[in-house]
Amino acid sequence: MALGPAAMGYDRAITIFSPDGSLYQVDYAFGAVKKGWTTLGIKTNSGVVIASEKKKESRLLDLDNIEKVFIIDDHIGCSFAGLASDGRILIDYARTNALQHRLVYDEPISVAYLTKLISDVKQAYTQHGGVRPFGVALLIAGIDKTVPKLYLTEPSGQFTPYQAIAIGQGDAAATEYLEKNYKPDLNLEDSVILALRALQVVQKPGEKLTPNTVELGIASADTGTFRKSSFEERQSYIQKLG
Amino acid sequence: MALGPAAMGYDRAITIFSPDGSLYQVDYAFGAVKKGWTTLGIKTNSGVVIASEKKKESRLLDLDNIEKVFIIDDHIGCSFAGLASDGRILIDYARTNALQHRLVYDEPISVAYLTKLISDVKQAYTQHGGVRPFGVALLIAGIDKTVPKLYLTEPSGQFTPYQAIAIGQGDAAATEYLEKNYKPDLNLEDSVILALRALQVVQKPGEKLTPNTVELGIASADTGTFRKSSFEERQSYIQKLG
Amino acid sequence: MALGPAAMGYDRAITIFSPDGSLYQVDYAFGAVKKGWTTLGIKTNSGVVIASEKKKESRLLDLDNIEKVFIIDDHIGCSFAGLASDGRILIDYARTNALQHRLVYDEPISVAYLTKLISDVKQAYTQHGGVRPFGVALLIAGIDKTVPKLYLTEPSGQFTPYQAIAIGQGDAAATEYLEKNYKPDLNLEDSVILALRALQVVQKPGEKLTPNTVELGIASADTGTFRKSSFEERQSYIQKLG
Amino acid sequence: MALGPAAMGYDRAITIFSPDGSLYQVDYAFGAVKKGWTTLGIKTNSGVVIASEKKKESRLLDLDNIEKVFIIDDHIGCSFAGLASDGRILIDYARTNALQHRLVYDEPISVAYLTKLISDVKQAYTQHGGVRPFGVALLIAGIDKTVPKLYLTEPSGQFTPYQAIAIGQGDAAATEYLEKNYKPDLNLEDSVILALRALQVVQKPGEKLTPNTVELGIASADTGTFRKSSFEERQSYIQKLG
Amino acid sequence: MALGPAAMGYDRAITIFSPDGSLYQVDYAFGAVKKGWTTLGIKTNSGVVIASEKKKESRLLDLDNIEKVFIIDDHIGCSFAGLASDGRILIDYARTNALQHRLVYDEPISVAYLTKLISDVKQAYTQHGGVRPFGVALLIAGIDKTVPKLYLTEPSGQFTPYQAIAIGQGDAAATEYLEKNYKPDLNLEDSVILALRALQVVQKPGEKLTPNTVELGIASADTGTFRKSSFEERQSYIQKLG
Amino acid sequence: MALGPAAMGYDRAITIFSPDGSLYQVDYAFGAVKKGWTTLGIKTNSGVVIASEKKKESRLLDLDNIEKVFIIDDHIGCSFAGLASDGRILIDYARTNALQHRLVYDEPISVAYLTKLISDVKQAYTQHGGVRPFGVALLIAGIDKTVPKLYLTEPSGQFTPYQAIAIGQGDAAATEYLEKNYKPDLNLEDSVILALRALQVVQKPGEKLTPNTVELGIASADTGTFRKSSFEERQSYIQKLG
Amino acid sequence: MALGPAAMGYDRAITIFSPDGSLYQVDYAFGAVKKGWTTLGIKTNSGVVIASEKKKESRLLDLDNIEKVFIIDDHIGCSFAGLASDGRILIDYARTNALQHRLVYDEPISVAYLTKLISDVKQAYTQHGGVRPFGVALLIAGIDKTVPKLYLTEPSGQFTPYQAIAIGQGDAAATEYLEKNYKPDLNLEDSVILALRALQVVQKPGEKLTPNTVELGIASADTGTFRKSSFEERQSYIQKLG
Repeated sequence: MALGPAAMGYDRAITIFSPDGSLYQVDYAFGAVKKGWTTLGIKTNSGVVIASEKKKESRLLDLDNIEKVFIIDDHIGCSFAGLASDGRILIDYARTNALQHRLVYDEPISVAYLTKLISDVKQAYTQHGGVRPFGVALLIAGIDKTVPKLYLTEPSGQFTPYQAIAIGQGDAAATEYLEKNYKPDLNLEDSVILALRALQVVQKPGEKLTPNTVELGIASADTGTFRKSSFEERQSYIQKLG
Repeated sequence: MALGPAAMGYDRAITIFSPDGSLYQVDYAFGAVKKGWTTLGIKTNSGVVIASEKKKESRLLDLDNIEKVFIIDDHIGCSFAGLASDGRILIDYARTNALQHRLVYDEPISVAYLTKLISDVKQAYTQHGGVRPFGVALLIAGIDKTVPKLYLTEPSGQFTPYQAIAIGQGDAAATEYLEKNYKPDLNLEDSVILALRALQVVQKPGEKLTPNTVELGIASADTGTFRKSSFEERQSYIQKLG
Repeated sequence: MALGPAAMGYDRAITIFSPDGSLYQVDYAFGAVKKGWTTLGIKTNSGVVIASEKKKESRLLDLDNIEKVFIIDDHIGCSFAGLASDGRILIDYARTNALQHRLVYDEPISVAYLTKLISDVKQAYTQHGGVRPFGVALLIAGIDKTVPKLYLTEPSGQFTPYQAIAIGQGDAAATEYLEKNYKPDLNLEDSVILALRALQVVQKPGEKLTPNTVELGIASADTGTFRKSSFEERQSYIQKLG
Repeated sequence: MALGPAAMGYDRAITIFSPDGSLYQVDYAFGAVKKGWTTLGIKTNSGVVIASEKKKESRLLDLDNIEKVFIIDDHIGCSFAGLASDGRILIDYARTNALQHRLVYDEPISVAYLTKLISDVKQAYTQHGGVRPFGVALLIAGIDKTVPKLYLTEPSGQFTPYQAIAIGQGDAAATEYLEKNYKPDLNLEDSVILALRALQVVQKPGEKLTPNTVELGIASADTGTFRKSSFEERQSYIQKLG
Repeated sequence: MALGPAAMGYDRAITIFSPDGSLYQVDYAFGAVKKGWTTLGIKTNSGVVIASEKKKESRLLDLDNIEKVFIIDDHIGCSFAGLASDGRILIDYARTNALQHRLVYDEPISVAYLTKLISDVKQAYTQHGGVRPFGVALLIAGIDKTVPKLYLTEPSGQFTPYQAIAIGQGDAAATEYLEKNYKPDLNLEDSVILALRALQVVQKPGEKLTPNTVELGIASADTGTFRKSSFEERQSYIQKLG
Repeated sequence: MALGPAAMGYDRAITIFSPDGSLYQVDYAFGAVKKGWTTLGIKTNSGVVIASEKKKESRLLDLDNIEKVFIIDDHIGCSFAGLASDGRILIDYARTNALQHRLVYDEPISVAYLTKLISDVKQAYTQHGGVRPFGVALLIAGIDKTVPKLYLTEPSGQFTPYQAIAIGQGDAAATEYLEKNYKPDLNLEDSVILALRALQVVQKPGEKLTPNTVELGIASADTGTFRKSSFEERQSYIQKLG
Repeated sequence: MALGPAAMGYDRAITIFSPDGSLYQVDYAFGAVKKGWTTLGIKTNSGVVIASEKKKESRLLDLDNIEKVFIIDDHIGCSFAGLASDGRILIDYARTNALQHRLVYDEPISVAYLTKLISDVKQAYTQHGGVRPFGVALLIAGIDKTVPKLYLTEPSGQFTPYQAIAIGQGDAAATEYLEKNYKPDLNLEDSVILALRALQVVQKPGEKLTPNTVELGIASADTGTFRKSSFEERQSYIQKLG
C-alpha cells in the first residue's frame, strides 16, 4: 500500500488540507478539466476570441445541437472545459447575475466582477462539507466599455486574467502554439485565424477542423458586444487556414 | 487486496473526485443503466421514434400493464433504461415543469430546455452529500414547432443530442445496427421499422418481438405531437419486419 | 477476509452504488421480505384475491388479533411480507392518500396511481442518506371501475403488475404452483381455492391450513369493492380444499 | 478476528441491513430487554393481569417508590422490561395520545390503536440516522368496551397480541410455566395467582415474593377499567400462593 | 489487539447498542461519576440530609467558594458527583422547571417529577447522535408536603429512589458504612452525624473533616424546606463526631 | 501500534467518553493552554492582581500593541493562556453579558455568575458534535461589592475559585513560587510585587521582565474597580523587584 | 506506516486537538500561506507600506490585471499570501464591515477592530465541523487618526501587530533583510525603498523587479489615507533601488 499523502486519507474529503498545504480534492477536480474538449481564448487590442473544438465521439452524435460557446450578456460570453453538467450551473448563475446587475445598477456588469462572482461560488464549494468542487474551468471573455478582457476561472475558485490561454485535453500543445504566435495588436480576423490554427494543432493527424467541429465566440472592442459565429463564418475562416 | 483507486476509497462517497478527475459514483450509476431493458430513439427529418423492449421475466408478469414509453407533454415523450424507480421521479418532474412552462409562458417548452431542467436535477445529485446519483438514463424525444429533437440525459447530469441512440442491455449491438442503417431522410414508417429491427437484433436467438414485448412512441414533425402506439399498430409494424 | 464487493464497503451505506451498478442496501432489504410469512395474490377477469398465512410461532400467540390483510379503500386492499413495522407506515400512507384523493378529485384513486405513490416513498428512502430502505414488499389489489389490478411494490421503489405473485418465505414453491395452475378466466371462488392450495403447498408436512392461520382479501370486478373474509368463509373454503 | 457479519460492520449503524436482511442494531436492542426485571401479562375472558417483579438490588434501595406498572388511561395500563429511561419516554407519549384521543373523538382510544402509535415511534427510531432504537419492550393491557386485550411492543416497532407473555430476565422459564397452566377462561383472581406463580418460578431458590417485590395491574372486563393493586391486596394474593 | 466488544467499535459512538444490549458510552460516563468527590444522601422519617466532601487538591484552592450542595427550590436541593460542568447545566434546568411549575400550577413540584424531568434530559442525550451522555449523577433530596424523598439520577437517564446512597470516589466504602448503620427512624441530627461519619470513612488516613472540607444540605419533614448549613453548624456537628 | 486508549480512537471525536470516563479531546485542549504565555492571578483581602508575560518571539513583533489583560466591566477583568483566537470569542461573550446584565438588572454582574456563563459556553462545546472544545483557560478577577474574587475557567467548562493560580508554559514553577510566598493579607502593592516575582521566576536565565514584556490588571476592594496598569506603573514596580 | 500523530488521524478533521494540543488542520493551512507570492509590510512613524510581488508564471499571463493590494477603506488596505480564492472572501467581508461601521458609528473603523473581525471569522472556521480553515494570511495596514498600524492575521484566527513582517514563499529571507535594516523612524519614501529591496532579495538570481511584477500600497500618517501606487511611481522607486 502506497504510503504517500494520497494514501493517508488527505485527499478523500473536500474540507481538509494535506500536510503540505494542498487541497487534494481541488487538485483532482483539475483532472476533470484536463479531460475536456480543448477550448481557448485570445485577447488583443481589438477584442477577444473564444474557440472550442467539438469532437464527433460517436457516429450518430448530433454535433450541431451541442453548444460550447455561450452568451452571458450582450458584452460577455464564455466557454468551458470539464464536466459539462457543472459548467451549465455556473453559466446559469452568471447569466442571472449579469441581468440582475443591469436591473439594479442600470449598467452592464464588468467582466472582472462577473468572473469574481462565479469564482466565489466555486470557492465556497471548496471550503464547506457536503459538496464537491466544480470540475470545470471557464473562459470568460468580454468588453468593459471598450477594453477587452479575458479571464480563466479554476475549480479552486481562483481566477486569473490572460492575454491568451488554452484549457482541456490539448491545453499544452495549444498554449505552446499561442505563446509562439501571439501578438497583442492582432486584429479580430487574425485573432480568429490564430485561434483556429491553435485548435488545428491539437487535432489528430489528418483530421481537419470543419464548421461543425468548432464553435467561435467573438467580442469586439469597437461594438462592445459578444456574439457567436454562424456556420458560414466558420466555413469562411477555416478555408483561410489553408 | 486490490490497490487500484476503487480500493482506496475514492468510489465510496458521492461527493469526491478520484486522482484522475473521475466521479466514480457517477460512473457506477451507469452500471444500473447498462442493466436496463434496451431502449432506443431515432430522429429524422420526419420526426422522432422511441422504441423500448419489455421482457417477460416471469411467466405471470403482466407485461401489458408495464409502461415504458411516457408522454411528458403534447409534443414531448420519453423512455428510460436503468432504475425504474429513479426514472419515475424524473418523469414526474418533467411533466410538472412542462405544464408550468405552458402556464407561465403560454407556449410549449422546448425539448432542449426541458432536457436541461431534468439534467440539472441529476447534476445536483452528483455534487451534494447525502444523496446518490440517479441510476437512470432518459431518452427525450419531441418536436420544437416543426423541428424534431432527440436527447440523451445521463446519470452525470450531462445531456447530448443524437440522431439515433440506444441504451440499456443491448446498447452496443443496437447502436451498431443503427449506425449501419440510419439515414436522416427516413420517413416515420421507415424509422419505426428501423427501430424495431434494431430491437430485434438484441433479442435472444429465436425470440421474435411481439406487440406485447415492445412499446413505441412517435413524434411527428407534421403534427408536432408525440403519441404512443396502439397494440394494432405494433402488430402491423411487426408483421412488416418479415 | 472475503474480497468481494460486499467486503469492500459498498454495501454499508444506503446512498452508494457498487461498481456493477447495484444498490446493495436495497438488495439486502429483500432479505427481510424473504423472511416474512408467505403472502400471494391472484388476478383474474373476475377480480383479485389476496391470501396470507399466519404462523402460530408461539403457543400463546393470539393469532386472531393479528391482521395480515388490510383495507386501504373501498376498492383497494393489500398485504405485505417483511418488516411489519415498516409495512404499517406505508399502509397508513396509502390510506391517507386514497382518502385525500377522493376529497380532492371526487373519485376513487386508481390502483396503479396509489401503488406509484407508495413506491415513490420507497424510492426516496433508497436515494437519500440518513434513512434505510423499507424492508417490506406490498401486494396491492383492487378494482379500477370494473378492471381488476394486482401490483407488487419492492423495497427498491420499483412496482410491477402481475397476474399472480407470491412473496415471503415460501415464494418459490408457491409461485411454482401458481404458474402451473393459473388461468386468467378463473372465477372468484376458484381463485380463492387456488390461492389456498398454493399456501397449503408451503406449509410444513402434515400441517393443514385452518381459518386461524390464513387471511383472505377478495376484490370483485362485479361489485368493485375489496373486502376481508370472515372466519366462516375461510372455514368453508378450507373444507373445499380436500 | 471473527469474519461474521457482526465483525464486518453491519451492526454498527442503525440504518443499515446486513446481507441476510437483519437489522442488527434492533436485534441488539433486544439484549437490553433481556436484562430487565421479569414482567408478564395474562389475558382471559375476565380481563388482563400485568405482574412485574422488583428486585432489591441494593440494601438501601427504596423499592416502595419504584414504579413498574403504569396507568395510561382509565382503561389501559402497561409495564416494561429493558431500559427504564427509554420506557418512560414511551409511556409519556402513550398517556398524551390517550388523552388527546378522548379530547378529539370523545371516546377512549382502543388498545390496539394506542399500541400501534407507540410502535410507530419505535419504528421511526429504527429507520432514521442519528438515533438508536428504544431498548425496551412494553406490555400494554386494557379493555376495549368489554373485550380484554394484551399486546407486546418490541424494539423493532413490531407489535403482537398475546394470550399470555413474559419478558425480561426470566422470560423463558416464566413463559414455559404460563404455557403449561394458561386457560382462557380463568377468572381475574385465578389470573393473578397464575401470574404470581409464574413470577415465583423465576426467583432465586429460597426467595419468596413479597408485597414489596412485586407490582400488579388488573384490567377487568366487567368494569372496563385498569387499576394498580394495593399493598394489602398483594399481601393477600401472595398468601394464597402457599 | 483485543477482540472484545470494546475493540470492535461498539463503544465509540453514542447511539449504538453492543451485541449484549449495553450502551457502552453510557457505561463509560459512569466512569466520570466514579472520579468525583464523594457525595451521599440519607432519608429518614425526619427528613433528608445531603453531605458532600470538598478536597483541597491544591494549596491555593479557595474551597470556601466552591459550591457542592445546591438549592433547587424551597423544598428541594441536590448535589452531584462527576463532571461539574455537566452538573451545572442540569441544576439550571431543574431550577427553571421548579419555578415554572409553581407559576403554572401554583404549587411546588414533587421531588419525583422534578427528578423525572432531569432524567428525561439525560435520556435524550443517550439516544440521539451529535451529543454525548451527561457524565454526572445527581442526588435530589426534598420534601413532598411532609414526606421526605431521596432520588439518584444516573447518566443513563434512569432514576431510583433510595433510603441512603453514596456516589463518587468513595461510594463503595461509604455505602458499606451506611448499610451497617442506617435506621429509618433517625432524627435529623443523627442523620447528619451518620452522614459525616460515612464521609469521614472515605478520607485519607489521618485526615479529618473540617467545616471547609464538607458541605451539608438538610431537608426537614417538619418545615418542608431544604436549606444549606452554615460554617458554624458544620463546626458544631464535626465536633460531635469525636 | 500502541494499544492504549488513545490509539483505540476514543480521543478522536469530541463527544465520546473513553472507558475510564475521560473526555480525551478536552484533556488535549489543555495542551493548548499549556503552550500559552504564563499568566497568573493573586487574590488577597485588598483585591486581585492579574499579571501576564509577553514574549518577544520575533524581533519585529510590536509587543506594545498586543493586549493580554482585558477589561470586561468596571469591576471585572481577565487574562488567558492558550489559543488567543478562542480566548477573544469568550471575552467578547463576557463583555456582552456583563453589559446586558447591567441593563436588565440595573446592577453589576457577580464575578461568579459571569464566570459560570463563560464556563457554560465551554461546556456546550464539549458535549455536542460538530465543534471542538475551547483551547483556552481564562483567569477572571473582580470585586463583588467589596469582596475580591478570582476564578479559573478550564476547557472542560469547569470553573474553580483560587486564592492564587498560574497557567500557561510556566505554570508549575510560578505556582510553586506562589504557594511558598502567598499570604491572604498582602496589600495590593505587595500582591503586584509577588506576581511580578512569580513571573520573573519563569523567564529564561538572564532575562529580566520589562514594562513591555508584562501586563498587569489590578482590582481594588476599596474602589471596587478593575483597571489596567500604565507603562510607568509597570516600570516603577519592576524597579522595586531588585 | 509512520506511527506519529499525523498518521494516527489527528490531522484529518478540523475540529479536533491532537494529544499535544495542536490543531493540525490549522497548521497545514499555513502550508498554503507558505506557497503564496511574497508579501510584506513595514510600519514606521510616517505610515505603513505594503509591497507584494507578482510572478509571471506563464508567458501569456496578464499581470497588469492581477490585483494583490486591496483598498478596504479610505484609511485601511491589505494584501495576502495563500489561497487567493479564500483571501477574496475575507477582503469582501472586511470592506462590508468597514462601510457598515461608518454608517452605524459615523467614524472610521479602527485597524485593530477590523483585523479582529476578520480574525473572528477565521477562528470560527477552525472550531466548527463542515468547514476547513482559511488557507490565507492577511497583512492589514492603516492609520487610526494619525497612528500607523500593521497587523498579520493567521489561518488560526490569531492576529498580531508587527513593526514589519513578510509572508509567503520568501518570508524567511525577506524577514531577515527587514530585521537587519528596519528603523522605526524611516520616512515613507525610505520605507518603500526598504520594502522593494526586501522583495528584490527573494527574486531569482538575475531577475529584477519591474513595475509590473510588484504592487505597492501606502498609508500616510499625515493624510490618514491608504492608496495604491501607480505604474509611474513604481517605476520611479525601482530606479532608485540601483
